[in-house]
Amino acid sequence: MEKYRIKPGANVNLDEFDADDKSEFDGDKAEAKDALKEIAKDLDDLQERLYAEGKHAVLFVIQAMDTGGKDGTIRSVFGDLNPAGCRVEAFKAPTSNELAHDYLWRIHQATPRRGMIGVFNRSHYEDVLVVRVHNLTPKEVWSKRYDQINAFERMLTEEGTTIVKFYLHISKEEQKKRLEERIEDPTKRWKFNPKDLDERKLWGEYQDAFKDVLSKTSTAYAPWYVIPANRNWYRNIVVARIVQDTLRDLNPQFPESDLDFSNIVIE
Amino acid sequence: MEKYRIKPGANVNLDEFDADDKSEFDGDKAEAKDALKEIAKDLDDLQERLYAEGKHAVLFVIQAMDTGGKDGTIRSVFGDLNPAGCRVEAFKAPTSNELAHDYLWRIHQATPRRGMIGVFNRSHYEDVLVVRVHNLTPKEVWSKRYDQINAFERMLTEEGTTIVKFYLHISKEEQKKRLEERIEDPTKRWKFNPKDLDERKLWGEYQDAFKDVLSKTSTAYAPWYVIPANRNWYRNIVVARIVQDTLRDLNPQFPESDLDFSNIVIE
Repeated sequence: MEKYRIKPGANVNLDEFDADDKSEFDGDKAEAKDALKEIAKDLDDLQERLYAEGKHAVLFVIQAMDTGGKDGTIRSVFGDLNPAGCRVEAFKAPTSNELAHDYLWRIHQATPRRGMIGVFNRSHYEDVLVVRVHNLTPKEVWSKRYDQINAFERMLTEEGTTIVKFYLHISKEEQKKRLEERIEDPTKRWKFNPKDLDERKLWGEYQDAFKDVLSKTSTAYAPWYVIPANRNWYRNIVVARIVQDTLRDLNPQFPESDLDFSNIVIE
Repeated sequence: MEKYRIKPGANVNLDEFDADDKSEFDGDKAEAKDALKEIAKDLDDLQERLYAEGKHAVLFVIQAMDTGGKDGTIRSVFGDLNPAGCRVEAFKAPTSNELAHDYLWRIHQATPRRGMIGVFNRSHYEDVLVVRVHNLTPKEVWSKRYDQINAFERMLTEEGTTIVKFYLHISKEEQKKRLEERIEDPTKRWKFNPKDLDERKLWGEYQDAFKDVLSKTSTAYAPWYVIPANRNWYRNIVVARIVQDTLRDLNPQFPESDLDFSNIVIE
C-alpha cells in the first residue's frame, strides 16, 4: 500500500491520483468482499490484544470531499470490531463553546486512550479545509495551523499514539453520481443537504486546500494515504489493509502475568 | 422477555432467579447463534434509522458480579453494530478529579446524544454496589442515592433517552468456574486480578446490594432485567431480544425531507 502513502515534503498534485485505480487488488468486487471478511477476523484478534496490552493508542483520521465515503468506510472497515475497543468521533460544525477555545481543544479531548482504536470522521483538518475555503478565519491564522498540527501529532505519537490519515479520493464526476443517488433513494435522502451543492461549486478550492494538507502534513510519524475511492469495494479493501498493517506493526501481546498461579485457590 | 423484567416496587429475592434458566428460547446453542445473527441484521437496520432520525437516545446499562459476562455480552450483542452509532463507556474506579465531583457527574457526561446507542459497562450503580460493600462512603450518603438515581433517570427519559438496564445473573459456582478458566487460559490471564478473590469472599454482601438496586431502582421508565447468565449463548439471545424490542418500540424512521427534489440540478 506504499504507493498511496504521501512522502513527507512531497508536492502533491491530486490530478495525478486516479480515483478509479484498482491496481493493488488482484480480484473483483466479490473477491474483495471475501478478503475484507478475512481481514476483519484478523483485526478482531489484533484489537483484542491491543486492548489487553493497553500500551498503544491508535488513531485513524478520515477526510474526504462530500459523498467521498467516510461513513461507508467506517461501517465497512471498523464495523466488525468490538465497540468496546473502538470509538468513532464525528466532528460536526463546532459549537459556540468549542469555538471559544482553540481548534485543537475539542480534538484533544477526543483522542483515544491507550488500548483503544479511535476513528475520526472529519477532524482538526477541517480547520484548514472548510475554514480556509470559506474564509472563516484570516489566512494569517489558518496558515500557521499546518505546523501546529504537525507539532500536535508529533507529541501524540511520541506519547504513545499511532496516527494514520486517509484521504478518500473521488472524482468530481463520481460526486455528481452520488449526490443524484442520495436524491433518488428515499433511505438516503436524509443525508442530502442542499448546501452540498454550494460546496460542490467550490470543488477546485477544496482540492487546493487538500493539496496543501497532503503536502504539508504527511509526516514520517503521521502519514497521509490517498485512497482511490470511486469504487467503494476497492476503497474498503485498501483502507482495511492499511489498518491491518498498522496494528500488526504494533504487534500487541496479551500481557504476561507475574503472579504465581500455582498457589491460587478459589473457594 | 417480560418474565425477566423487575416490576416497580417489587421486593427482589435473587435466590428465586435461576441463573441456568433457558426456558425462553426453544433451541440449542447453535440455533441461538443463528437467531442472534438474524437479530443482528435487524439491529443494524434499526440503528441506522435511529441515527438518521436523530430523535431518541438509547442507553443500555450492564451490571454483573465479576466474570458475569459484561464484556462478552457487549461483544456479542453490540459487536455487529456500526460503531459510528454505538458508543460503549466502561466506568472504572473513579479518578481523583471524578471523585472531586458528585458520582453522577462523570456519568452524565457520558450519556448518549440523540440518534446514538450508549452502552454502559458498569455505571452509577457502582456507587451503591462497590461503594456500599466496601464502605467507601457512609451509609447516610449512599442510602440517598437510590432516589437520586431514579430522579436522574426520570429526567433523562423525559428529555428523550430510553433506558434499559441488565443485571447478568450468574451463580457463585459458575463464578468459580470462570475464575479458574481465566487462570488456565493464557489469553484470558490478563483479565485475572487477585483482588477478584477478595471480592468473591464478599459474594453475599454484593448480592444484598444488588437486591436493593433491583428492588429500589427498577422503574416504569428505566426497568431492570435479571438475565440468566450461566450460559453465555442464552444470556446473549435474551439481551439481544430485549435490545431489539426496545429499538422496535421506538419505531425510528428515516426523516422525510420537505425539499422539492424535482427542481434540484447537480452541475
